[in-house]
Amino acid sequence: MSAIESLIGEFGRLPGIGRKTAQRLTYYLLKGRPEEAHRLAAAIERVLAEVKPCGECGNLSSDAPCEFCRNSRRDPGQICVVEEASDIGAIEASGRFRGRSHVLGGNLSPLDRVGPDDLNIARLMQRLADGVTELIIATNPSVEGEATAAYIHRATASFPGLRVTRLARGLPVGGDLEYADGVTIAEAFSGRREM
Amino acid sequence: MSAIESLIGEFGRLPGIGRKTAQRLTYYLLKGRPEEAHRLAAAIERVLAEVKPCGECGNLSSDAPCEFCRNSRRDPGQICVVEEASDIGAIEASGRFRGRSHVLGGNLSPLDRVGPDDLNIARLMQRLADGVTELIIATNPSVEGEATAAYIHRATASFPGLRVTRLARGLPVGGDLEYADGVTIAEAFSGRREM
Repeated sequence: MSAIESLIGEFGRLPGIGRKTAQRLTYYLLKGRPEEAHRLAAAIERVLAEVKPCGECGNLSSDAPCEFCRNSRRDPGQICVVEEASDIGAIEASGRFRGRSHVLGGNLSPLDRVGPDDLNIARLMQRLADGVTELIIATNPSVEGEATAAYIHRATASFPGLRVTRLARGLPVGGDLEYADGVTIAEAFSGRREM
Repeated sequence: MSAIESLIGEFGRLPGIGRKTAQRLTYYLLKGRPEEAHRLAAAIERVLAEVKPCGECGNLSSDAPCEFCRNSRRDPGQICVVEEASDIGAIEASGRFRGRSHVLGGNLSPLDRVGPDDLNIARLMQRLADGVTELIIATNPSVEGEATAAYIHRATASFPGLRVTRLARGLPVGGDLEYADGVTIAEAFSGRREM
């Protein structure tokens, strides 16, 4: 296979990148300054060499432990559980959480044969024993995310003093009631608050 | 900058890839098999090392001359002029052209200080002298593409026997008259054909 076809193929394997986009990216790199393309290739090799899951929380990081686990200003009494390391960025962007994170590495999915032992749950239970007062479950509001949240909630029964919460579901800010789906509106009704 | 941030930044520099997509691609490579990410990096380095513009037609290729210029079954009497090497694939996909290609490497754009000498036009004139009977101008149907087509048309005045044509403009097949813009419909009227 030619070098161009090979790069189009590799780009096309990435999620959300179809053949047309893969072609555009390939010719963009070929038309641009070679340094730019070298930098992209080097950045890929660098994450492969440097980035590992944090032994404490499962976050992907060049540091061990990761920047959140090393940060003594983060509240060790609160742990926010997410499915993927990439979810931590979204949580951080909200500016509303100053505790520690815990990355499961996916969600429970019997069809894909992903059970509790395939997720970073045993380590979570160890961490909960270490003076944690609130566990915020921030798995996705999907069927699998809810199942995973329910499983973790049950697994925490051995920590009677622990407060276990779930991120609220409702209308997304800036969204349009007209275009919201029925399940979301139903959740918004049952979670309604006094004004 | 961390390895993850650095790769997000490099992906984000690519056309049509915003920060969210760059994050998704980065975490996709981190979650997947390392071989896949190594292959992408290696494919980028390979195009940089191998691919050069063809000295004959300007097409980007690992071979010199490129596969189209080496193919003796392609009609040397017809040359189709395109703006970019990536346009050749679109022409080939139509299955309607069996001549030779010629890549300009852009279009005339006084605002960006791109003049005739910055494009692969001098070489085109040399090729036209070599028994070419038809020049098909397939620059984009944009303002710059039309200006470039008009310039090339004028430049071919010294080849009196040469037939110079331009790809037809009109309604795209499968398109919807209701959503076509006025200029396209006007072109479709003036280019209308007997049924």
